[in-house]
Amino acid sequence: MKAARHGRIGLVPTMGAFHEGHLSLMREARKDCQTLVVSLFVNPTQFAAGEDFSKYPRNELRDAEMADSVGVDVLFAPTTEEMYAGGLTTISVKGVSDRWEGAHRPGHFDGVATIVCKLFNIVEANFAIFGLKDLQQCAVIRRMVVDLNLPIEVRFAPTVREADGLAMSSRNVYLSPEDRVTATLLSRELRTCADSFSQGSLTAGEVERILKDGKSLLESAGFKVDYLNLVDTESLEPKTTPADGDSVIVAARIGPTRLIDNVQLSK
Amino acid sequence: MKAARHGRIGLVPTMGAFHEGHLSLMREARKDCQTLVVSLFVNPTQFAAGEDFSKYPRNELRDAEMADSVGVDVLFAPTTEEMYAGGLTTISVKGVSDRWEGAHRPGHFDGVATIVCKLFNIVEANFAIFGLKDLQQCAVIRRMVVDLNLPIEVRFAPTVREADGLAMSSRNVYLSPEDRVTATLLSRELRTCADSFSQGSLTAGEVERILKDGKSLLESAGFKVDYLNLVDTESLEPKTTPADGDSVIVAARIGPTRLIDNVQLSK
Repeated sequence: MKAARHGRIGLVPTMGAFHEGHLSLMREARKDCQTLVVSLFVNPTQFAAGEDFSKYPRNELRDAEMADSVGVDVLFAPTTEEMYAGGLTTISVKGVSDRWEGAHRPGHFDGVATIVCKLFNIVEANFAIFGLKDLQQCAVIRRMVVDLNLPIEVRFAPTVREADGLAMSSRNVYLSPEDRVTATLLSRELRTCADSFSQGSLTAGEVERILKDGKSLLESAGFKVDYLNLVDTESLEPKTTPADGDSVIVAARIGPTRLIDNVQLSK
Repeated sequence: MKAARHGRIGLVPTMGAFHEGHLSLMREARKDCQTLVVSLFVNPTQFAAGEDFSKYPRNELRDAEMADSVGVDVLFAPTTEEMYAGGLTTISVKGVSDRWEGAHRPGHFDGVATIVCKLFNIVEANFAIFGLKDLQQCAVIRRMVVDLNLPIEVRFAPTVREADGLAMSSRNVYLSPEDRVTATLLSRELRTCADSFSQGSLTAGEVERILKDGKSLLESAGFKVDYLNLVDTESLEPKTTPADGDSVIVAARIGPTRLIDNVQLSK
């Protein structure tokens, strides 16, 4: 075990404001490398105009302590200037990034792909781990790594949830106490949809009805729903009939806070 | 010397149809690596619609013999399917790729940047060498390597010319005997412009006049000139007053053949 880890570099790319979700990625990476690097960079190019870049939660000292507590060797926290001085190069992944978050956050995935490729190259990591809460981001990165032959292994780890099911997110701190209660509906509704989809063969009409009902339920609870859909987990293309391994994805606003989540139909 | 080369991988990316220009890059690379890889791939994504992709000269057997004669270890000649199966990812370098060849060949530099990044990653080369005949390509690659933190050293080698000054190019085989004679004017006119620019301080008007005269001369000889300009060698931005190290660049058609060339003002 130890020999296998010798000389290996593991990377967990993050935007900081650590929670248990980040720590679980770090613990997972820690098992398999000699040097564990966590990058902390609130990447301006992945925020669309009018988004929460300037108020995105930042707490580097606390982050550093938390990273230390799980055995991180290097916390790499570059400045925007260091990452982008004079930069003119952008990586775009078509298809998989076009819909959902890509449609609602113009330029978001170009920003993600570009910064992640840079981090891979700077760290020269053997592997990197990403959280499946950002399912489409995982799909975009998987595609980029294959398409550009990046010499790195990418892994994806399960979403960590609060006791009531809410997916952990740095943005959860934006939730008012009232919105925090409502927010639990999101994962519950995903689970309800996934359970329905897992129960035998459904027609396209039935799938549509289930998603429509789910959307209505969320909207009557106060959500503004950007999308609630059944998709292929790798291509992110919408599905009209469910298959094992597909995912149900959702993005919705409650008050000023935009939340995303997804669950996978059991394989 | 030998120790310094140990384990090092050198790469010369090409589209095949080798001539002395390619061989000079290979000989240069050979000096500094243990394993010399030459890639041979006529990259469809860097040909714009209506260009010469299908008739681009191909002669892999002859190329293999020539590569062998200068000590190439690996001739990597993948198929289009191997390089692009399912590929959705594109690298774009703004600014430096916008003008000149970028304007005349839409999508050309996206194709170049993407395939070059892929080759770097597949070969995991320590360094790669490109010919300065494709000056803007060199600038695009230099910028991409910096912007994406690619862990490779890129080098640029002087243009190799025929005895009469014509820059060597795989596309020279397209020239009719008559056009081949006319073609020599291109490098002569570049040299004339560069000499004028090197002679003390010139006003913007004088620079403009020199370029206009050069263009007229080429056009009266039968060229259709896409551009003849004075540019900054790294940014490819046009200059109104010459400085040491700037370049004069030209692209022009003679008959059905489009030629490019450049010379640098002595530093």
